[in-house]
Amino acid sequence: MADNSIVREQLAIGIDIGGTGTKFGIVDHDGNVLFNGEISTRTHDDVNGFINELHVELSKLIEKAGGIGQFKGIGVGAPNGNYYTGTIEYAPNLPWKGIIPLAKLIEAKFKLPVTLTNDANAAAIGEMMYGAAKGLRDFIMITLGTGVGSGIVANGQLIYGHDGFAGELGHTIIIPDGRMHPGTGKRGSLESYASATGVKYTTIELLETTTEPSMLRSIPKEEIDSKKVYEAAIQGDALARHVYEYTGRILGLALANAVMFSSPSAIVLFGGLTKAGDLILKPTREHMEANLIQVFQNKVKILISHLKESDAAILGASALAWEKR
Amino acid sequence: MADNSIVREQLAIGIDIGGTGTKFGIVDHDGNVLFNGEISTRTHDDVNGFINELHVELSKLIEKAGGIGQFKGIGVGAPNGNYYTGTIEYAPNLPWKGIIPLAKLIEAKFKLPVTLTNDANAAAIGEMMYGAAKGLRDFIMITLGTGVGSGIVANGQLIYGHDGFAGELGHTIIIPDGRMHPGTGKRGSLESYASATGVKYTTIELLETTTEPSMLRSIPKEEIDSKKVYEAAIQGDALARHVYEYTGRILGLALANAVMFSSPSAIVLFGGLTKAGDLILKPTREHMEANLIQVFQNKVKILISHLKESDAAILGASALAWEKR
Repeated sequence: MADNSIVREQLAIGIDIGGTGTKFGIVDHDGNVLFNGEISTRTHDDVNGFINELHVELSKLIEKAGGIGQFKGIGVGAPNGNYYTGTIEYAPNLPWKGIIPLAKLIEAKFKLPVTLTNDANAAAIGEMMYGAAKGLRDFIMITLGTGVGSGIVANGQLIYGHDGFAGELGHTIIIPDGRMHPGTGKRGSLESYASATGVKYTTIELLETTTEPSMLRSIPKEEIDSKKVYEAAIQGDALARHVYEYTGRILGLALANAVMFSSPSAIVLFGGLTKAGDLILKPTREHMEANLIQVFQNKVKILISHLKESDAAILGASALAWEKR
Repeated sequence: MADNSIVREQLAIGIDIGGTGTKFGIVDHDGNVLFNGEISTRTHDDVNGFINELHVELSKLIEKAGGIGQFKGIGVGAPNGNYYTGTIEYAPNLPWKGIIPLAKLIEAKFKLPVTLTNDANAAAIGEMMYGAAKGLRDFIMITLGTGVGSGIVANGQLIYGHDGFAGELGHTIIIPDGRMHPGTGKRGSLESYASATGVKYTTIELLETTTEPSMLRSIPKEEIDSKKVYEAAIQGDALARHVYEYTGRILGLALANAVMFSSPSAIVLFGGLTKAGDLILKPTREHMEANLIQVFQNKVKILISHLKESDAAILGASALAWEKR
């Protein structure tokens, strides 16, 4: 029970840095997101400009929540974020190149302790504490957004690896010599197919290499995006449905490989691509099962995150702040 | 320090069941294999016949070591062995099909407590306790024998997964729609290429689809095996060297994917294929690095097990017996 006579830091800040947008929220001990906001990740080529804008926006929320004295700390989820060093290193989907001491920079600006991890790891922690993975000791979280991230939990613990960078399932090679990833220079990675960007390129490829009729043919290629493909698919457009079938085939293969690696009881999917529902889930499940050896078949649940839009990552990131010292 | 005035069980039995042969040994607390032996895994289609033969052979060693009273227990490593249930389930490379309650059967025969795990998991424990992985908290053990097995250690713990079957890297799909695995019915798995059997089939494929001169052309195809390919390669046979180059290309890709999953500080390789030394290691290293995104490059050591022939698995299996209760 809460002892209200003791003054204590009751709030944490969770920040989720994505390839496109950065979401942040003020979270209480029970996992309620009290206030939240968002800025673009891509406005500033210099990380300091980004942190300044973040500080301006978050300061408004901090004031609303009773001032900086209420806060225990800040947790940050970011692509290629390193839990051990607090740095972002060579993140292919962020505008800041090389090694960025992000935790230190945010700490200096906000005067609060900062813990950083990979954005998908943060989401996994959020799902484990408040979401679809509550009570699970072995699961894999996969975020299907602009890019593809993952967080792996085994024996009830997040797997960080020797250097803090474990869980880059999005960069595993699923189609050798396949589609080029412009950010990494590697061919055939999961992220090149099972992301919003991947869906866009698959659609353009199908439009260019087939004569299948499609309402998407009336849209200039530069304007095709995953949202338009989704809208065409739910209206029954066959080509758009083939895009999801193809994407699910590759995602299903990647999930099968992940299952044969760490044998989770569930895979939690999160992010824009999951909004397509059975259009993507049905082929994903089918091709996962088809690629599993018998001992793994019909055992692994594919769950869709039911946490509110991006809350998983904000909640997970904020959970890091409670953990800190 | 040992207190010799106290009579205690000082010995354990380690059993390593492989696709071809089953090795066993009597191990003391310091990891010395005092006595050991081997039988074929393939003589008996009925698992009870196999256990009877194992009992006859091991009883001789048990007598030599001072009788059953000296023994704490038995640890068994076997393909598809389940740590939680003590069963072997649907092992594609073993003659016994379905779900076999192996631990229970051995326990009944030997009247000693039995702990079972995956053969590669047992090898990983052996390497961690006595071998190349001593002191490592994050590594992956890969056994390249008749088949391909793996054991994954993260945060200093072996990853068993929710059902005890984690670490089946050999069955992950590396080449979609690739070579058929006769045991699993799946196409393009690592095991179909980076195993003794895989080397044999790659050689036959190269002999059939190219006109490259090779001393292997004088051997009837049915008689080609990985040993003959190795002998040709060390004599400079170009086709045999291409076999290793091709095998290393696929193994390297699989290692890159494994690294991006759990970010180990080292990968320990073990088994027949590693005897080819740089013939296989050089292309494996090159293609692993080529498929890694920057943040993982030039960090992961590829180590060769230096434990004596199969001792890793016997030692690892025996270590399970010390653990037990």
